[in-house]
Amino acid sequence: MTGFGIDNLPYGVFSVPRGERRLGVRLGNDVVDLSGLGGLFAAPSLNPLMAAGRREWTAAREAVIDHVMAGPPTIPLHDVTLHLPFEVADYTDFYSSEAHAVNTARILRPSSPELPPQWRHLPIGYHGRSSTVVVSGTPIRRPSGQLDSGVYGPTRRLDIEAEVGFVVGVPGRLIPTGSFEDHVFGVVLVNDWSARDIQAWEYRPLGPFLGKSFATSVSPWVVPLSVLTPVAPPRQDPQPLDYLRPAGPAYDLRLSISWNETPVSSPPFATMYWTAAQQLAHLTSNGASVRTGDLYASGTVSGPERGQVGSFLELTSNGAAPVTLADGSRRGYLRDGDRVEISGSSADGKIALGSVLGTVAG
Amino acid sequence: MTGFGIDNLPYGVFSVPRGERRLGVRLGNDVVDLSGLGGLFAAPSLNPLMAAGRREWTAAREAVIDHVMAGPPTIPLHDVTLHLPFEVADYTDFYSSEAHAVNTARILRPSSPELPPQWRHLPIGYHGRSSTVVVSGTPIRRPSGQLDSGVYGPTRRLDIEAEVGFVVGVPGRLIPTGSFEDHVFGVVLVNDWSARDIQAWEYRPLGPFLGKSFATSVSPWVVPLSVLTPVAPPRQDPQPLDYLRPAGPAYDLRLSISWNETPVSSPPFATMYWTAAQQLAHLTSNGASVRTGDLYASGTVSGPERGQVGSFLELTSNGAAPVTLADGSRRGYLRDGDRVEISGSSADGKIALGSVLGTVAG
Repeated sequence: MTGFGIDNLPYGVFSVPRGERRLGVRLGNDVVDLSGLGGLFAAPSLNPLMAAGRREWTAAREAVIDHVMAGPPTIPLHDVTLHLPFEVADYTDFYSSEAHAVNTARILRPSSPELPPQWRHLPIGYHGRSSTVVVSGTPIRRPSGQLDSGVYGPTRRLDIEAEVGFVVGVPGRLIPTGSFEDHVFGVVLVNDWSARDIQAWEYRPLGPFLGKSFATSVSPWVVPLSVLTPVAPPRQDPQPLDYLRPAGPAYDLRLSISWNETPVSSPPFATMYWTAAQQLAHLTSNGASVRTGDLYASGTVSGPERGQVGSFLELTSNGAAPVTLADGSRRGYLRDGDRVEISGSSADGKIALGSVLGTVAG
Repeated sequence: MTGFGIDNLPYGVFSVPRGERRLGVRLGNDVVDLSGLGGLFAAPSLNPLMAAGRREWTAAREAVIDHVMAGPPTIPLHDVTLHLPFEVADYTDFYSSEAHAVNTARILRPSSPELPPQWRHLPIGYHGRSSTVVVSGTPIRRPSGQLDSGVYGPTRRLDIEAEVGFVVGVPGRLIPTGSFEDHVFGVVLVNDWSARDIQAWEYRPLGPFLGKSFATSVSPWVVPLSVLTPVAPPRQDPQPLDYLRPAGPAYDLRLSISWNETPVSSPPFATMYWTAAQQLAHLTSNGASVRTGDLYASGTVSGPERGQVGSFLELTSNGAAPVTLADGSRRGYLRDGDRVEISGSSADGKIALGSVLGTVAG
């Protein structure tokens, strides 16, 4: 399969029936078992390799490429179970797409539709729940909650947020943007499932809580940062404060969202206003530590055009303008049984991110 | 010392010079080593005991009391180092004191000083950072951050929040209020350090982030829930929805805050509007899981009177009305070198919570 060739070889954790968890890389539609390489590869999660640091990451990469080039036996993807590839420490979510911030402000806060005043000065973020970060394919139970004063029941506005997640390998604090690549091990796709009615009723003044905490899905494959080609960061005006400079690399990743097999949107990651290096610098700028396994997500990736939004809130104007799927049915928000797949790849198609899938269970 | 007798025996993790971490209980001003009891007591943290469940907690209690009654050797507190007593999974913070919510609304949002509309319908909360939960005594570095547009520097409004924290032992989801005591192992005191200027600039619309994430201190002793005497929960109007009923137990804990040895406030925990059982039920009401080591804090404990507030924001009206300390100096917010101690005990004084201490490093 395109995007999963020798240039990529993303890391994951798999098991075969009645087997233990093992590290592997994806090659086409197969898995190559790495556990036989021993050392950092003999663990049941990526955490030891992630913690080992950039020099070891490079050495590991060379060992993996040598191993794969030697033509080892492979296991078809459909014969394995994929697991969460790393143990999540803290999970943080940002809000760094300008189009998304503007769209949500217009839809959710029509009386004050402007960008928040600090939006161009710092990458706004908040902490999410780590216990409910799950691997792609995990069924998503429709959450219940308070939808308004006096109403508790299943959410009526179950949504997605298509994001790119960055996985921290090497712990640190006060991490300058220039040290980003010494700390971040790799990249995953993220679906930050959201219950818009629960969120709208709960979120002032302390932010989203139960509207988000029921599930966050991540792709099973961690693409090493080193295989991605950086591009120039976005223009930022006003110029950020010193601790957010230089901006560091941006990545031209093209995301794609399908809803019950119907492609509905193509969010362009290169349009994000704040870079992952700036997000990490901001996150640690107060002395807070990040640990091996920290996951921080970009925030919903929405481009400026209609076909580029990363949430159904935006796609359907909060349900008011439903989309028509391939089977002719119409949707505002998610129905039970619906299946969402977010996939992504580099602009040249050479590097695919593992897709993140979820089906809504009632 | 009063409050640390045979009725209490809170659990902690200690080490002697060049020694490993061991479990112990506090008796007066001494520590009784439990590691020799083996089994769940032989671990370097409370997590295995916490995960074992209520029946094992009761059995452990009996074993500990028998051990202590037999007059084992004890180690003076000043000869040991106390460590974080459990590994923190997710950290969540609530906002359940009505007086605190009203006071902060008046001070921080004078144009809309009302309680948030959902405040009496659900216990508002948010996720905090687990990586920076530290044990009492850990020096608190004054954080830097964006204080306003274009200004990055050390916070000028470093504050405390005196809270009661609940430590989850047994994992679960959709936990009814009636099952609270099957899941919560014990209680700690919490100081949720806050940088008010960073917080004020960053927090809309996603809530507090760097204004809080630099440090959260907890007391080194976990008081088992079973040694606390429940009292009637507060009156709630309107009646909460079914998933928040019955309210479950409240606890008449009396907190005390000293600032450089000067007692400045006595927050009464019994005045909290939402109970810990309701907070846990709410937290898990959307299907989110809690794990062994989850810590959730009550929110700042402020009573309705001036001498009962749990933050310096409230005590000094955001610095505008400084307090005079015993040495004659005046304070709005914390200065470098200042020392804050939060202590607490049951109404009858029989059960003390270990105090939570912190000194501000510049």
